Amino acid sequence: MNIEEMAAFCKRKGFVYPAAEIYGGLAGFFDYGPLGVELKNNIKSAWWKTHVHNRTDVAGIDGSIITNPQVWVASGHVANFSDLMLTTKKSKTKVRADQFIEDQLKVPADGMSAEEINNLVKEHKLKLNGEDFEEVKDFNLMFETNVGPVSGSSAYLRPETAQSIFPNFRLVQENARMKLPFGIAQIGKAFRNEISPRDFLFRCREFEQMELEYFVHPNEVNKCPYINEVKDVKVQYVSAYMQEKDEKEKSGTIAELLKQNIITSEWQAYWLATEHEWFANLGANMKKFRLRQHVSTEKSHYAVDTWDLEYNFPFGWKELQGIANRGDYDLKQHQETSKKELSYFDQESKEKVLPHVVAEPSQGVDRAFLVFLFDAYDDKDKRGFTVLKLHRTLAPYKVAVFPLLSNKPELVKKATEVFETLRDQTTVFFDKTGAIGRRYARQDEIGTPLGITIDFDTLEDGTVTIRDRDTTKQVRAKIDDLQMIVMKYLQGASFDEIL
Amino acid sequence: MNIEEMAAFCKRKGFVYPAAEIYGGLAGFFDYGPLGVELKNNIKSAWWKTHVHNRTDVAGIDGSIITNPQVWVASGHVANFSDLMLTTKKSKTKVRADQFIEDQLKVPADGMSAEEINNLVKEHKLKLNGEDFEEVKDFNLMFETNVGPVSGSSAYLRPETAQSIFPNFRLVQENARMKLPFGIAQIGKAFRNEISPRDFLFRCREFEQMELEYFVHPNEVNKCPYINEVKDVKVQYVSAYMQEKDEKEKSGTIAELLKQNIITSEWQAYWLATEHEWFANLGANMKKFRLRQHVSTEKSHYAVDTWDLEYNFPFGWKELQGIANRGDYDLKQHQETSKKELSYFDQESKEKVLPHVVAEPSQGVDRAFLVFLFDAYDDKDKRGFTVLKLHRTLAPYKVAVFPLLSNKPELVKKATEVFETLRDQTTVFFDKTGAIGRRYARQDEIGTPLGITIDFDTLEDGTVTIRDRDTTKQVRAKIDDLQMIVMKYLQGASFDEIL
Repeated sequence: MNIEEMAAFCKRKGFVYPAAEIYGGLAGFFDYGPLGVELKNNIKSAWWKTHVHNRTDVAGIDGSIITNPQVWVASGHVANFSDLMLTTKKSKTKVRADQFIEDQLKVPADGMSAEEINNLVKEHKLKLNGEDFEEVKDFNLMFETNVGPVSGSSAYLRPETAQSIFPNFRLVQENARMKLPFGIAQIGKAFRNEISPRDFLFRCREFEQMELEYFVHPNEVNKCPYINEVKDVKVQYVSAYMQEKDEKEKSGTIAELLKQNIITSEWQAYWLATEHEWFANLGANMKKFRLRQHVSTEKSHYAVDTWDLEYNFPFGWKELQGIANRGDYDLKQHQETSKKELSYFDQESKEKVLPHVVAEPSQGVDRAFLVFLFDAYDDKDKRGFTVLKLHRTLAPYKVAVFPLLSNKPELVKKATEVFETLRDQTTVFFDKTGAIGRRYARQDEIGTPLGITIDFDTLEDGTVTIRDRDTTKQVRAKIDDLQMIVMKYLQGASFDEIL
Repeated sequence: MNIEEMAAFCKRKGFVYPAAEIYGGLAGFFDYGPLGVELKNNIKSAWWKTHVHNRTDVAGIDGSIITNPQVWVASGHVANFSDLMLTTKKSKTKVRADQFIEDQLKVPADGMSAEEINNLVKEHKLKLNGEDFEEVKDFNLMFETNVGPVSGSSAYLRPETAQSIFPNFRLVQENARMKLPFGIAQIGKAFRNEISPRDFLFRCREFEQMELEYFVHPNEVNKCPYINEVKDVKVQYVSAYMQEKDEKEKSGTIAELLKQNIITSEWQAYWLATEHEWFANLGANMKKFRLRQHVSTEKSHYAVDTWDLEYNFPFGWKELQGIANRGDYDLKQHQETSKKELSYFDQESKEKVLPHVVAEPSQGVDRAFLVFLFDAYDDKDKRGFTVLKLHRTLAPYKVAVFPLLSNKPELVKKATEVFETLRDQTTVFFDKTGAIGRRYARQDEIGTPLGITIDFDTLEDGTVTIRDRDTTKQVRAKIDDLQMIVMKYLQGASFDEIL
């Protein structure tokens, strides 16, 4: 299934639509439909649970999308957050330069300088629709707007959630009484005015991030007290060196990667493994994941070392998460620009220190959404239609309730009772129309793990049929036990264990 | 407690900060801190559960903040979504005209025309800091930005979530196979470039809405099949007529209000009552709520009839929700502007109809956040410090776990075990520092309903102390029973019933 087919599937089933599709949409913007909003919320909740609620060393925040514009001066975004853009001489058609070079010449162009681009355009006489290009230009990717009634009061839509975290570092540390090492997490929207948005949800102009900035004492940037928890995690990886030598990815455990100095920071190793396992525990296909170290030309202006968690999309290996070591770049910049102290008082050594960000496990919600859909989508199932094998934690509906026949009021009434009992506990779909096989198929296609059918035996003996999406196996259970069965199932019991 | 004191409390405890406060903030923008993000998420989840998951007649969506700008042409926002603004002649200081008139002359000015404002300014020789005003001007409240690299491609940040719903009406109806009457719900951010943001979270430039558009067959706009569910709900109310006569609010049941034709639409009555009860069920102080009918001068351009659910803030009665009857205004506008059909095919009468929106129970998350904090805040408690009596569904942490002494590793170890057992189930705070009374006080101040203390008896007999925030009552329970106790409590059992 390619990305266009995925976009069509998402629209057909009500996961994602082009924004305001009746007006032809708007490139890089999407509306999530009834199933999409549930899947997206489940992804965000699962992330928040593992990254914030289940940890004592992470506090959450939710920063504004528009903030004081000095934030973007300090962070370097006003000066540096731009892509090179090629514009045709006559019609002024604009394309993102690196993508155009990559598409035309099949060479990696990410990180190329304006000069390199201009030379390649000249050398290969590159044109667009027969038109020559002007000299390449910088284009700042921040959306700008005016705040208040006085013109000239520019502000920006945040191009990343990270910069809502750094200015609040000290308030959060004090309020939540955090001690180093600790993290500050956030889920929220960000906006980038991409010159050429593409690949459906992969590169949008409006997107959502799940972000964690992890702060560590500057003397302890390489020691992670939790490293043993992840040492046996097995990953595919490709280092910068391997990329230079054109070597394929290898696989190894986190312990091995650290021992061989392929990853040098325990903290980065810890977070890479933790993020890798987050996907694994939610049912992603880990054969399609790898860790890839940034090569020297692609490092961000702030980053000491960056590893991406990548996924093998139909359009190639692409970044899901950048796990960067940002050093003390951000806190230092904000401290200098704001003239407000952002240091941390270390109770043990009785000194003020400026913490380092050793890792920022940051990922796009929309990209994770795509990953889970690609890995769950199965149209090779023997049933002859699509089965969406989403993890139960992510499935929009956990249970569907069906009265066997819609024209028998006593069945519909009993099914409604079952529906009302279960919906306090979880998300339940009620469907009474069509043949029962057709209704099963509909739920399989949208990934509902359990189907409960109320039939004539139910009226006699109070039992129902429970059906498992993945195996189509069916068992008979008492209505009185359903709440307990669903609870066990949602807590992770296999279908065979729920009775 | 006034609104400034609430803002100070929110900052001190980590609920809400001015956005990027180290840069002096930005008027009308706020960052939610560690406790604020939890409270806000709990409010949103509670709304989504009652408005979407617990109903079979509502589908959810999550639309983009920036969308095709034709949406705002169709909706009337490009032409009409403006406030009147007064500008001083010399320094060009700008104020919102109606607010300025109200503050200066103590007369209601919402809905006044430019001419009326100009006349009042002249008549009363109104000035600002000694300066005269220019003629009053229209100021469009939508934030504008440019999408893509070509200048002149204006788009807007959505000033309301409602307009993400209407263009998707038909896709959602078909995908979710909804039959009239049904609703489409959404939670998401919206932006209004207020001339004078004020009152902390009450009137921000960036805010979040929880919105439901409820569609009904045009022949059935007055018949609500669910009306009996709410007929006994008792409310305070003030009709347009009562306001004209300067009468105080009265109280009555929904059945009485309908019978007396004070509310004429069953649908509006149903949703007003449902929203009223949403607050009541989450522990709000219902003496501070009233229903108020819009008077003729303040109706929106689309609205047939509007009732607000109002709350008595320290700065007066203010709108929490507008429950408008929008008729078929929006679908008609979008159908005409997009030239795409948005009608609904009625299977029974075999005809196409354009549904009416009989109610849009729409409210600001940030305003609800303020309401719950005001109603929970109690500094008159005999304990001598603040107790935040938040409903258990809303409390940022449900449980706090304390080892009696932090320097006894066996207590800390056992407490950590308890913490780890419970955090799978709910949000748990772990606190080992300070005297136990001080730790109770800290949790009382942030609204944690249950405190669990691990002491030396725990090591002997496996029991712990459970303490109730509101009564400070304590009971002794077995560690093995804690999961069941917490589950019962979260499902609504009283403290006396949990054992």
